[in-house]
Amino acid sequence: MRVYNFSAGPATMPLEVLEQAQAELCDWQGSGMSVLEVSHRGKDFIACSAHAEELFRELLGVPDNYKVLFLQGGATGQFAAVPMNLSDPGDTAAYINTGQWSGKAIKAALAQGVETQVVADEEASSYTTVPAPGSFSVDPGARYLHYTPNETIGGVEFNYVPDAGDVPLVADFSSSILSRPIDVASHALIYAGAQKNMGPSGLTVAIVRNDLLGCARPQTPDIFNYQKMATSDSMLNTPPTFGIYLLGLTLEWIKRQGGLEALGARNQAKADALYNAIDASALYHNPVAPEARSRMNVVFTLSDPELTPVFVAGAAEAGLVNLKGHRSVGGIRASIYNALPLEGVEALVAFMKEFEAAH
Amino acid sequence: MRVYNFSAGPATMPLEVLEQAQAELCDWQGSGMSVLEVSHRGKDFIACSAHAEELFRELLGVPDNYKVLFLQGGATGQFAAVPMNLSDPGDTAAYINTGQWSGKAIKAALAQGVETQVVADEEASSYTTVPAPGSFSVDPGARYLHYTPNETIGGVEFNYVPDAGDVPLVADFSSSILSRPIDVASHALIYAGAQKNMGPSGLTVAIVRNDLLGCARPQTPDIFNYQKMATSDSMLNTPPTFGIYLLGLTLEWIKRQGGLEALGARNQAKADALYNAIDASALYHNPVAPEARSRMNVVFTLSDPELTPVFVAGAAEAGLVNLKGHRSVGGIRASIYNALPLEGVEALVAFMKEFEAAH
Repeated sequence: MRVYNFSAGPATMPLEVLEQAQAELCDWQGSGMSVLEVSHRGKDFIACSAHAEELFRELLGVPDNYKVLFLQGGATGQFAAVPMNLSDPGDTAAYINTGQWSGKAIKAALAQGVETQVVADEEASSYTTVPAPGSFSVDPGARYLHYTPNETIGGVEFNYVPDAGDVPLVADFSSSILSRPIDVASHALIYAGAQKNMGPSGLTVAIVRNDLLGCARPQTPDIFNYQKMATSDSMLNTPPTFGIYLLGLTLEWIKRQGGLEALGARNQAKADALYNAIDASALYHNPVAPEARSRMNVVFTLSDPELTPVFVAGAAEAGLVNLKGHRSVGGIRASIYNALPLEGVEALVAFMKEFEAAH
Repeated sequence: MRVYNFSAGPATMPLEVLEQAQAELCDWQGSGMSVLEVSHRGKDFIACSAHAEELFRELLGVPDNYKVLFLQGGATGQFAAVPMNLSDPGDTAAYINTGQWSGKAIKAALAQGVETQVVADEEASSYTTVPAPGSFSVDPGARYLHYTPNETIGGVEFNYVPDAGDVPLVADFSSSILSRPIDVASHALIYAGAQKNMGPSGLTVAIVRNDLLGCARPQTPDIFNYQKMATSDSMLNTPPTFGIYLLGLTLEWIKRQGGLEALGARNQAKADALYNAIDASALYHNPVAPEARSRMNVVFTLSDPELTPVFVAGAAEAGLVNLKGHRSVGGIRASIYNALPLEGVEALVAFMKEFEAAH
């Protein structure tokens, strides 16, 4: 019996993708080998990787003057790679701080000797909102402006693209990439770990505007050097081949769903159903400003915190798993990525109502 | 029909491992989820990761004063991580150069501002051998001595552990780890990409002696910082979970084979069969000094180079695939890692004899 898996990442994947991977795991494309076993430099895998990149570009509408890179090390790796590639020690870079993940990005930039200017910090709200459009300004001398479109832990999400003026805009899209259309051209650099909406952990995707290439500090490790990875078609070293293969299958699934417009509408409907249930309840509470509520990670608390573990255990018995909030904040977190169907959200809402009636 | 896959990496895996992964790919341990979908912070995956580490320690005999780390970025990532963790700019580090992979490690150390002392360089032999024991000496002030126990491209392998005196000995064991017993205690740091004998690409394993922890340069990216990764049990960020799971299955398979002593004997028999066939032939030639011949990557050329593509194509038709030599050196390369059975080597030897008789 398949459960509804609300894990924040690694996260639920489309069953069709898993079933295809399962069917061909010991014999890929009639090769007599698993896709896990083929050389990344063989023509079959090069075609597999090129297919994933092509679909990714098509679905997200990536302009021709951007490279798409398949990397390793997750967003945490990129927290260091971004300042290494885009700045020199002592340079200024602007950051928007909307919670734990943007906070980690800032800390990593400081470790690279960057003068970080936090142009907006939502600490006063306990990171329950994002800055209003136009409420901050960016020093034109900053090497880039970094923001986190969706904070996985706090459950806050930008519903607009920040205006960075002529300063390159950099975004950690780990937890919302492919969940709806993105205006790639408004960004100079987008990066994302795969383990929410793209595939398994261990693959990181970056979209880099060509004019940002070639500026890395000399000490930048090769696997973090955007120029070197771009020149080698992401095969400077052995890439995480199975992750790239699963990304390709996932992108095919997204295309069959109708693309990012269709998924965006579906994700909005899922989020609306859940937030409506929370707002209509006396037991559940979501602290996030309505205009900044995440469509991917819905966090809520119970008015009686002692009921939280009872809720989590009861939900798991009902086939609704991994609802426990992040260890740093407690409460409940329902991550409702692309592969979590509306039926799963409806089952959760039904359980929430039953639970509230019973307690 | 399963072929015999001589790929240098990603490489053939034990069929039993693939079949188990296939069987449980959509429902892992009765969880109603794939192992690809579970949180790395859930108790099930933590147990899976701990099990892999425990088996790895047991099979390799890793002493208690070493940490085992599960990392990302491959050996190429470690080429930068080693100097970042073990030296400061301007420090001296010693390197043995036995071919392309050690050469890349040296280049990466130079980029980190290390004064590299190449204490032995086999260029004069065109990298067809390794230095004799005792033929080089290491400056006691060097921060470490780095060597490459097996060169995947040149097909040369150390059959002894270099003496580094009191200097920490660092080894890139990517292409020979788990192929036979290793004297871990003679080394201070061992690292290896998984994609030859451990599992899929995208996972890197490091074995770090405790006294080397805590010395990283402040700019070291967190995912490369051995101390930070050790403190967080390799879960500072989301690890490559599927790779760790497959490593665990592979280690169970190794244990069922009788452990590293048994595999070492089997790998020696495989290598002997292939080198004997080469040496007995007038058509095939292996350039490597007998005492330095790799037991993992057997390279050879044909006396008529125009026959090389004919050989590769004919072998593939006979179900012996991925025998083309590395693009930088040409010829033939048969990688005969743990999961390539003796029967595969025997089939290759039979094909070689038939081919020689026919041409």
